[in-house]
Amino acid sequence: MEAEQGDEHPAVYLILHGVSKRHNIGNIVRSAAAFRVTEVCLTGTRQFNTFGSHGATDFVAYRFFPTVQQCCTFLKQERGCRILGVEITDNAAQIHEHPFTGPTAFMLGNEGTGLSEHQAKLCDGFVYIQQYGAGTASLNVSVAAAIVLHHFALWASFPERSRQGEKYDVGERPVRRVARGYVPLTVKELEQEQQRRAAKKASGDGEVSGSASSEGELELLEHA
Amino acid sequence: MEAEQGDEHPAVYLILHGVSKRHNIGNIVRSAAAFRVTEVCLTGTRQFNTFGSHGATDFVAYRFFPTVQQCCTFLKQERGCRILGVEITDNAAQIHEHPFTGPTAFMLGNEGTGLSEHQAKLCDGFVYIQQYGAGTASLNVSVAAAIVLHHFALWASFPERSRQGEKYDVGERPVRRVARGYVPLTVKELEQEQQRRAAKKASGDGEVSGSASSEGELELLEHA
Repeated sequence: MEAEQGDEHPAVYLILHGVSKRHNIGNIVRSAAAFRVTEVCLTGTRQFNTFGSHGATDFVAYRFFPTVQQCCTFLKQERGCRILGVEITDNAAQIHEHPFTGPTAFMLGNEGTGLSEHQAKLCDGFVYIQQYGAGTASLNVSVAAAIVLHHFALWASFPERSRQGEKYDVGERPVRRVARGYVPLTVKELEQEQQRRAAKKASGDGEVSGSASSEGELELLEHA
Repeated sequence: MEAEQGDEHPAVYLILHGVSKRHNIGNIVRSAAAFRVTEVCLTGTRQFNTFGSHGATDFVAYRFFPTVQQCCTFLKQERGCRILGVEITDNAAQIHEHPFTGPTAFMLGNEGTGLSEHQAKLCDGFVYIQQYGAGTASLNVSVAAAIVLHHFALWASFPERSRQGEKYDVGERPVRRVARGYVPLTVKELEQEQQRRAAKKASGDGEVSGSASSEGELELLEHA
């Protein structure tokens, strides 16, 4: 559900860059649908596998960016977001203290390595989830995402979804326009992408987030 | 880590009965280690697959019960727990309001069907997690478990684990005495199990939670 102009609740966004396991992406998308994420922003590749999302993919809006930097620029300039990395750092705020000020985009890192230095530099701040036991030093990325989104929803006072007895009402399923697991290109995105590629070709600069194969996938989608 | 006598923090337990997917059990155990669960109680079968637990299984104490009823009796009588089912019901309390009074055991249901009627009857109350989006009507079971445990930890004021910079300190790995993925029998449990089986044989009553194959696994473990 896209937060409408004039919505009194600050919007929340997710940035997925480098999350690699399909179970995790599926679970994250399912939580994004449950906790009213305005848009899930994918970077690098338009292809994503949401095994285990239980159909939630159809209820979540996606936006694709070739690089994580472009993603953050869009969210800051066009959506007025603070970018908060979900990571244990010395200056990270505790998530349960709700260190939010308005529209917020949470950035999640790779399952094994967390946020890269490049990603961390794009963040305006960091949040983390306290741990108490003696065991492993990290939570699963989809678990961390859900706890973070849950706390934002509490802070933002999102209205609870209507429900009938024991089941929440599920919205009418929107019509899917592209293959499941792909973020479609808008006309504007297509233009921008073509400009980006032309510029890249002209400059000979290869510094683009995303692999050669993801570039190939983009080509296919543009001509589909 | 077992909460010691005189610990000022109320203990938290998890009851896993009917959670079937190994990714989910692995994630739940990982969260149990992070959020200071005293014991994970498994019912029906001593065998469990914790794919994705990232080694957390070694830091979590397990206890096995042949039936979920025996599990609840133990937790109520021996541990002074309230049993809270994690389920959306008309009388369920919102988890973020921290409806806790002391030692608590959270009971999770099967991924597809939730708590059975039998399980629900054993609960002293229910908690649920508010949802806000238009999407699917449920959260993944490991995500729900983590949010519930996180809130209990906040309410119980568990002390945060020590950490060095960006990584939490991980406790010394305890010595594993049985195969990974099995809950060992204590001497007392073995006696009780033998008595239970003798009584079952004598009465001809087959009403025991757990499949024929799990009974077979028990036999193997007893003689290992």
